Amino acid sequence: MAKPPVPETVEHILNYHVDEIINRPLLAEKLRSGQILRIKLGVDPTKPDLHFGHAVVLWKLKEFQDAGHIVIFLIGDYTTRIGDPSGRNTTRPILSAEEIEQNAQTYLAQVGKILDIKKCELRRNSEWFETMTFADIIKLLGQVTVAQIIDREDFQTRLRKGLDVGMHEVIYPIMQGYDSVQLKCDVEIGGIDQKLNMLMGRDLQRKFGQDEQAVMIMPLLLGLDGAKKMSKSLDNYIGINEPPAAQFGKIMSLPDNLMMDYWELCTPASSDELAQIKQELADGTNPRDIKLRLAKAIVALYHNQSAAEAAEAEFINTFQKGELPKDMPMVKIPLEPISVVDLLVATGLVDSKSEGKRMIDQKAVKIDQQLISDPDQKIDPQVDMVLQVGKRKFAKLS
Amino acid sequence: MAKPPVPETVEHILNYHVDEIINRPLLAEKLRSGQILRIKLGVDPTKPDLHFGHAVVLWKLKEFQDAGHIVIFLIGDYTTRIGDPSGRNTTRPILSAEEIEQNAQTYLAQVGKILDIKKCELRRNSEWFETMTFADIIKLLGQVTVAQIIDREDFQTRLRKGLDVGMHEVIYPIMQGYDSVQLKCDVEIGGIDQKLNMLMGRDLQRKFGQDEQAVMIMPLLLGLDGAKKMSKSLDNYIGINEPPAAQFGKIMSLPDNLMMDYWELCTPASSDELAQIKQELADGTNPRDIKLRLAKAIVALYHNQSAAEAAEAEFINTFQKGELPKDMPMVKIPLEPISVVDLLVATGLVDSKSEGKRMIDQKAVKIDQQLISDPDQKIDPQVDMVLQVGKRKFAKLS
Repeated sequence: MAKPPVPETVEHILNYHVDEIINRPLLAEKLRSGQILRIKLGVDPTKPDLHFGHAVVLWKLKEFQDAGHIVIFLIGDYTTRIGDPSGRNTTRPILSAEEIEQNAQTYLAQVGKILDIKKCELRRNSEWFETMTFADIIKLLGQVTVAQIIDREDFQTRLRKGLDVGMHEVIYPIMQGYDSVQLKCDVEIGGIDQKLNMLMGRDLQRKFGQDEQAVMIMPLLLGLDGAKKMSKSLDNYIGINEPPAAQFGKIMSLPDNLMMDYWELCTPASSDELAQIKQELADGTNPRDIKLRLAKAIVALYHNQSAAEAAEAEFINTFQKGELPKDMPMVKIPLEPISVVDLLVATGLVDSKSEGKRMIDQKAVKIDQQLISDPDQKIDPQVDMVLQVGKRKFAKLS
Repeated sequence: MAKPPVPETVEHILNYHVDEIINRPLLAEKLRSGQILRIKLGVDPTKPDLHFGHAVVLWKLKEFQDAGHIVIFLIGDYTTRIGDPSGRNTTRPILSAEEIEQNAQTYLAQVGKILDIKKCELRRNSEWFETMTFADIIKLLGQVTVAQIIDREDFQTRLRKGLDVGMHEVIYPIMQGYDSVQLKCDVEIGGIDQKLNMLMGRDLQRKFGQDEQAVMIMPLLLGLDGAKKMSKSLDNYIGINEPPAAQFGKIMSLPDNLMMDYWELCTPASSDELAQIKQELADGTNPRDIKLRLAKAIVALYHNQSAAEAAEAEFINTFQKGELPKDMPMVKIPLEPISVVDLLVATGLVDSKSEGKRMIDQKAVKIDQQLISDPDQKIDPQVDMVLQVGKRKFAKLS
């Protein structure tokens, strides 16, 4: 038994920042019984850089952990070692066992900012898939119908468009479901994009004579662009491992209309506090001031209070007063005449000439505080020359 | 190299009693080159009783074997040991390794009536499936698309009707195809019902960098009912292992309009001989006489000439002269009053009361040569009493 459950904690777990819970009554009953529950989060070992979108789920897991339950990180190492044998899906790179293990450790190091890693179970699905025979697999597949799999909207859409869906792809959801059987999960947690896979876990658990896990669908966090789900590939993310100044700056760049979402999903603010902040905004407080508080609260969460205050001071100093940041990356390049756009590429401030030209077009490039308008303008680089791209990217030549 | 190919033999293999050959040009080229080819027949180890329908394929295999090629009997032992894990398909009973091996030996013993077993390869798909890992299987499945599998009419029909198709079922065709890869087959032979599975073999061979096998679709033999494919479950079959009298009697019960099919598919008659028989029928020869020749030719094939002649004599004696057969099974039952229908069941002449009643309704039951019309009629069984059901089932009480 876990410590006697605190009713408020149970209510918090069930109600706070959850989009949907499938099998909620059984979950509520188990939580109230004081039973120790097993909560699974599937981890993709190809993306070890965690951002605030992932953190929404991790904070929920922390609530479970704090209440004495067992959080399980399930690394899909077996499938990742296989990748996509058809070679069509480039989002499924093949990784070696070593790379996967390294990514898992990087993942855990980041999770450690939120959860107590020592109390978590780290599991790998190779534990059960490695020893399965073809006969075992056929028996497993016999628990699932073709309709169950291909009626999924993602597959249906591709099939209707005449796009190839590889037979191996329809096996993956079944594998994910079987993970829940092996782990005897009481709860699986994830975003809406994982809903069907998590429901497969329930089906298979029933077939294998287990209680069906509750499925907890967590809200998606929009990225800095205010338009799309936060994701590394869209470059609209804030990493939980980023330094204080970077986190602070990115939060300050949020569109005002996203601010309340971030207060809700990225800070531990209570409902009362949230209501108060809304009231302040309604009463005409400058949104910029509320955003400064948000940035400080978040940086304090991932770093500490003094780092948060320093980041705030630095931010105000640099961006609100128009001064240059105190610490800028020093870059060494040959001090020979060069075009502005080539200089931006050479210093790493942009990834390509086309990005450089676009930034210059957008009047986002300054050299020694002077706005640049011609990408082909020739420059004589000098020591201590300061390059700036956008509001937050700087470099000083050395 | 095989012995130098005889052009007539090559033409015979390509043209004699074949419904369709896919990849015919390559097969013709290989046959003419003198290369030794590998011809696979998939064998279902759950049905060791071979009938004339199977024999159509075996005779074609004999042509290949006589020309120096290698005939491979592939026992699907691995899948048969699994059966149907969903329990829905009762035609897929689970057999033990011992039962499968015993069935395989029974199968071979029967095949030995047609082919030289010593020159055949007997293979089992457990050879490759037993050691495959989940990763291997996913790589194999990655070679096939979902559309390729579910576009099959058999699956489509069931899916459209909302009937369950188990995920394991869609794996079986891929396994069968992979057998051809493992065996490096040049030809796979089978009935039209196997066509899609055999084409899967071609797809996979191409994916694995092999020549695509030719697929030889053999004609289906209609059963004794003249309506459906010969099959044991429809009880419209003639077994290649049945005794001369049984084979002879069953052939004589064929509808006249099937006779030429049987001449073509069940005897080694040449095109000239077939043409001559057709002419005789057209000229008004009594079909019964042609059928007697057919029965004799077939019994001679599976037994020998003298057995064929004895069976003919017995048949004429029993059925054409209305006499009782010389040897009847003796059955011992309690000599107490009993209804006719119970007596039929007790002596094993029918499988159930309802079958007994149906036979009596059809005026097919006689006791001591007297037609019975009332199933409930009470009988005092006596030693040497002769019971008869239909034309060929007899029992004598002892």
